[in-house]
Amino acid sequence: MLKLSNRIQIGDTIRNANKEAILAGWVYRKRDHGKVSFIDLRDGSGLLQLVVTKNTRIIGRKELNIGLESVILVRGKIKKRPLKLVNPEIPTGALEMEVAELEVLVGNEQALPLDISKDIGKVHLDTLLNYRPLTLRSPKEQSIFKFSEKIEEGYREFMKKEGFTEIHTPKIIPTATEGGANVFRVDYFGKDVFLAQSPQFYKQMMVGVFEKVFEIGPVFRAEPHYTSRHINEFTGLDAEMGFIGDYSDIMAKLEDCIRFIMDKVGKEASNVKKIINYREPKIPKSGIPKITLKEGVKIINKIRKSKDVALDLDPEGERILGEYTLDKLKSDFIFVTEYPTSARPFYQMPTEEGKFTRSFDILFRGLELGTGAQRIHDPKKLAESMKKHQLNPKDFKDYISLFKFGMPPHGGWGLGLERFTKQWLGLDNVRLASLFPRDVKRVRP
Amino acid sequence: MLKLSNRIQIGDTIRNANKEAILAGWVYRKRDHGKVSFIDLRDGSGLLQLVVTKNTRIIGRKELNIGLESVILVRGKIKKRPLKLVNPEIPTGALEMEVAELEVLVGNEQALPLDISKDIGKVHLDTLLNYRPLTLRSPKEQSIFKFSEKIEEGYREFMKKEGFTEIHTPKIIPTATEGGANVFRVDYFGKDVFLAQSPQFYKQMMVGVFEKVFEIGPVFRAEPHYTSRHINEFTGLDAEMGFIGDYSDIMAKLEDCIRFIMDKVGKEASNVKKIINYREPKIPKSGIPKITLKEGVKIINKIRKSKDVALDLDPEGERILGEYTLDKLKSDFIFVTEYPTSARPFYQMPTEEGKFTRSFDILFRGLELGTGAQRIHDPKKLAESMKKHQLNPKDFKDYISLFKFGMPPHGGWGLGLERFTKQWLGLDNVRLASLFPRDVKRVRP
Repeated sequence: MLKLSNRIQIGDTIRNANKEAILAGWVYRKRDHGKVSFIDLRDGSGLLQLVVTKNTRIIGRKELNIGLESVILVRGKIKKRPLKLVNPEIPTGALEMEVAELEVLVGNEQALPLDISKDIGKVHLDTLLNYRPLTLRSPKEQSIFKFSEKIEEGYREFMKKEGFTEIHTPKIIPTATEGGANVFRVDYFGKDVFLAQSPQFYKQMMVGVFEKVFEIGPVFRAEPHYTSRHINEFTGLDAEMGFIGDYSDIMAKLEDCIRFIMDKVGKEASNVKKIINYREPKIPKSGIPKITLKEGVKIINKIRKSKDVALDLDPEGERILGEYTLDKLKSDFIFVTEYPTSARPFYQMPTEEGKFTRSFDILFRGLELGTGAQRIHDPKKLAESMKKHQLNPKDFKDYISLFKFGMPPHGGWGLGLERFTKQWLGLDNVRLASLFPRDVKRVRP
Repeated sequence: MLKLSNRIQIGDTIRNANKEAILAGWVYRKRDHGKVSFIDLRDGSGLLQLVVTKNTRIIGRKELNIGLESVILVRGKIKKRPLKLVNPEIPTGALEMEVAELEVLVGNEQALPLDISKDIGKVHLDTLLNYRPLTLRSPKEQSIFKFSEKIEEGYREFMKKEGFTEIHTPKIIPTATEGGANVFRVDYFGKDVFLAQSPQFYKQMMVGVFEKVFEIGPVFRAEPHYTSRHINEFTGLDAEMGFIGDYSDIMAKLEDCIRFIMDKVGKEASNVKKIINYREPKIPKSGIPKITLKEGVKIINKIRKSKDVALDLDPEGERILGEYTLDKLKSDFIFVTEYPTSARPFYQMPTEEGKFTRSFDILFRGLELGTGAQRIHDPKKLAESMKKHQLNPKDFKDYISLFKFGMPPHGGWGLGLERFTKQWLGLDNVRLASLFPRDVKRVRP
């Protein structure tokens, strides 16, 4: 019997060429040619072609009648592939195994709802998501999440290098963070509480403790939108920092962070390019361009020949601005600054005259990647701002008390990991960058 | 005016001895001695003594009448402290600043509810938690979370080194993971859904994708317990791995992981020892001891001279077993294995004869740190096990379908980060290892 404990991963076969090895994995593709069968074996590290002939001993079976995604264990010699074959969409590399022994660990005799080696690109998004435990096994789907893991790694590495402390703030919160709308209600031992739509209040509290903090964790938005840009649970990349001079300090830090991630991903995730044909983002030497919302709207109106006076960006406007940014400013990112106070949460710091905020959205290829701002740190001004936003300071007692303990000028940002991945890889839908996306209609699998 | 942008952190003063520097931070302690005042300044990196004399220029004020936790900016020369002073509980180090200029950025004129430099050790747990944004500022409280961050860092570093992929699974789930009890209900656009009490099903699905996965994220348990060991939202350290031979492979991997963390924390978090007097955990050369639950209960019964026949560990039993483990087996950890099938979730793999499971609890100093097991990977056996556990396989359609796609032998574990920290540092209550703990009675701040 073959021993699982002696098994190596496909990723290690490169170091075992011309040697015997034991491999284990799933049957990804299978081609029978009479006397010889080819199996593309998949494990967590990659794909390898197996050559099964009449000399192969099939343990415990007379025939190799197994379906796709069966789990098998094989022993044989790792060799260079004799022919330079025309590679399929997902390549199996330059090595193969001449299989001496093959054992079926878990046979899969039923037909699968779809063939992930062929159908992934063709099936409807709903089918892709309904069969997530199967479809995620496709190397293409896998590579999206290996890529996304690398973005997250880069984010964490940068933040730690810059002296930010990683924190975990509660997802169960007593009040609706930003004033009531868009939060999910939880039954908490008979009491109504809510799911955090951002770690906003808590990361601010933690600025009083560690000065610079970041969090990577789930964020819940009860937004009824059903678009290719919205999911209702996503992975937030949050940060908050104290002792800033101005909100330009926040944008500068975020830009450094994005550059760091680009550098890391460029170096360490380039193998994804073999599977997904994406374009690396670019930032000009002069830095990520900044325009005020007013200027942005003016540019958009000019391009779409509209006289719209609303000081706001709709998705189409964001897209137009993205194209403009790339075309004229040679950048995939842009900071849009100074949103009107009335359109932003109460805790964002207004500019001198009060009508606008010291805030920004960052767009990545014409899609809002995240939001940032300096925060109000004076408890009196904060209470005033709440009233202006039709909120009752009494409902935010714990939060306001924070500012009575002494808070320095501070601010931060929140980004969405799934949107980051989507835009970078050029995916059609943000759902494709979430393992098990949640939207208005979907909470399964 | 002093410029924030030229400011350095206290942690960098060591490289700036005998030089001028600008610092910013909070007034942690203050001692007035007529002609001279001493302020212990705190920032995110540490504490430093400031010496304020009549030569100090107080910008914009006549007198230095500021309260604790005021935010100040100072300029002056960094010098060695002239006297070897009797250090207070939280030391301020060997340097001090002779302050030339001092500016109050945010004055705190009100009395604080408590003095975090004096009262932290004395106040009631409820007070400590009610004023969390203030009390967390105490260097002692801070150090708990810097320590916990290091445990998490070690966990992640080990898992990545071992080829595990980091994943984010949904916290909003359609069914109650382990069969109904102990889950929080969420109102999801008018539909009832639940908060994940573990990433169990999803991490198993991801074994089919990446083979080896881990997750660090919030876990929600609607357990009505009100003890020093329970919180209702905690940070789960989860892992799941495919192609295992037996559940001893899981325990071996977990032991390696714990050793790696111990090594890292021992090297990189030793400064916490200056503030919290904890003992490093130990594991004998022969490895973390393993006993079956049956043996464990026998030992406990012998020690407490009881003839209890229940095959279960109560908290008191766990504590006794912890003492025994340390005393007789020279280990701070122990694996307790083979829990009865009836007492474990349906997805745990039974032993040959079926009455027990291939599962373990790991105790750390007499407290359950986590649970692990091999899982059932045969869809028919899984459906049978559900029925035995009074569950309807129809309610778990998506989950069972996974096993029809071909799943190898696999298993994993789930640990609690807060309990890890609590036991390591010898804290009285797990709430002290959570920034903003949630329990049956508390959802604030």
